[in-house]
Amino acid sequence: MGEKLIPDIVVGRLPLYLRSLQHMLKEGRQVTSSQELGERLGISAAQIRKDLSQFGEFGKQGTGYHIEYLIEQLSQILKVDRVWNMVVVGAGDIGSAVANYLGFVDRGFQVSMIFDNDPAKIGTQVGNFTVIDIAALEDEIHKAGIQVAMIAVPANEAQDVANMLVKAGVKAILNYAPLSLSVPPDVKVQYIDPTIHLQRMTFYLD
Amino acid sequence: MGEKLIPDIVVGRLPLYLRSLQHMLKEGRQVTSSQELGERLGISAAQIRKDLSQFGEFGKQGTGYHIEYLIEQLSQILKVDRVWNMVVVGAGDIGSAVANYLGFVDRGFQVSMIFDNDPAKIGTQVGNFTVIDIAALEDEIHKAGIQVAMIAVPANEAQDVANMLVKAGVKAILNYAPLSLSVPPDVKVQYIDPTIHLQRMTFYLD
Repeated sequence: MGEKLIPDIVVGRLPLYLRSLQHMLKEGRQVTSSQELGERLGISAAQIRKDLSQFGEFGKQGTGYHIEYLIEQLSQILKVDRVWNMVVVGAGDIGSAVANYLGFVDRGFQVSMIFDNDPAKIGTQVGNFTVIDIAALEDEIHKAGIQVAMIAVPANEAQDVANMLVKAGVKAILNYAPLSLSVPPDVKVQYIDPTIHLQRMTFYLD
Repeated sequence: MGEKLIPDIVVGRLPLYLRSLQHMLKEGRQVTSSQELGERLGISAAQIRKDLSQFGEFGKQGTGYHIEYLIEQLSQILKVDRVWNMVVVGAGDIGSAVANYLGFVDRGFQVSMIFDNDPAKIGTQVGNFTVIDIAALEDEIHKAGIQVAMIAVPANEAQDVANMLVKAGVKAILNYAPLSLSVPPDVKVQYIDPTIHLQRMTFYLD
């Protein structure tokens, strides 16, 4: 299917389509169109049709997309037709909020361990998890064969944590620390930094 | 300066440049180049030069960019040479983590109020804040003249909250609820949904 040739920006829109379709399904809907999807997302219908056409023929001219089928297909494409185990590194406010968040599972992910280096936190409970000493990180991740991790540690510790995760075999890192990480080319990193989003908006304010 | 003509994607990269420059400054650095900045961010040097040239002439051929000066200029462009007050709606795990996070102030933002609709939460302390009844949201925001808000409520309440915020005069919303919001054209929305980022990465995993 030539997955590697799909532009990253197209891949980036597929989760948005999937999320909207899942909302529609919950609303009891069965069929939608690229127009409707586009209006919900602020993306043009033509862009949506073009993006989806890179992966196959999912709708019919005039009848639109069958929501459940398109969810199934997009889930397969994004490989969230399974549930990925994740580790969280950092048991502070953000790490704890993420570990307690129940909205991941329906969408392909579940937290399975949380690590910290603070002796005051190691061994304590965060939601359903006992905080594990970061010294055990590499072993535990290897043993469990986990490929997905979240970093929720202070900025000055994040690169060290990323290095440990990479060594442990992690291939996808969601980084909440406000800095860019350096990782090998086969490791993906995505960033969540609320200030970056805020600054994108204040540009337009008076 | 024709701000309105700058493509949104260019505006979106400026906060990343600013963040990297601020890290460099903290490291005691004085001068940098588009090459170095590009390497830190995984963006080409040519792209960075092109983006910055839309706003003026910030560096000299051969001598690079003076970090402190460029920080000053980017802060002005992004309007974070001041501190914006923000409200947080939703005093759950995410809202509380955000309200407690101290990393905003240096970068142009501070939380000034947190709201919830849960009688069990109203009046309790979250960090330095007493949770305010959401019924008072419109009045409080008007009175304080606040333009920036974060939504950290369940998905099924987020659109109602967005409507209240818009009515109160908010012009920039950072939405942590996992759905697309519908707002008037003069209101900006940015989204933080960790699952969207995770799904972008699993596409590339085996």
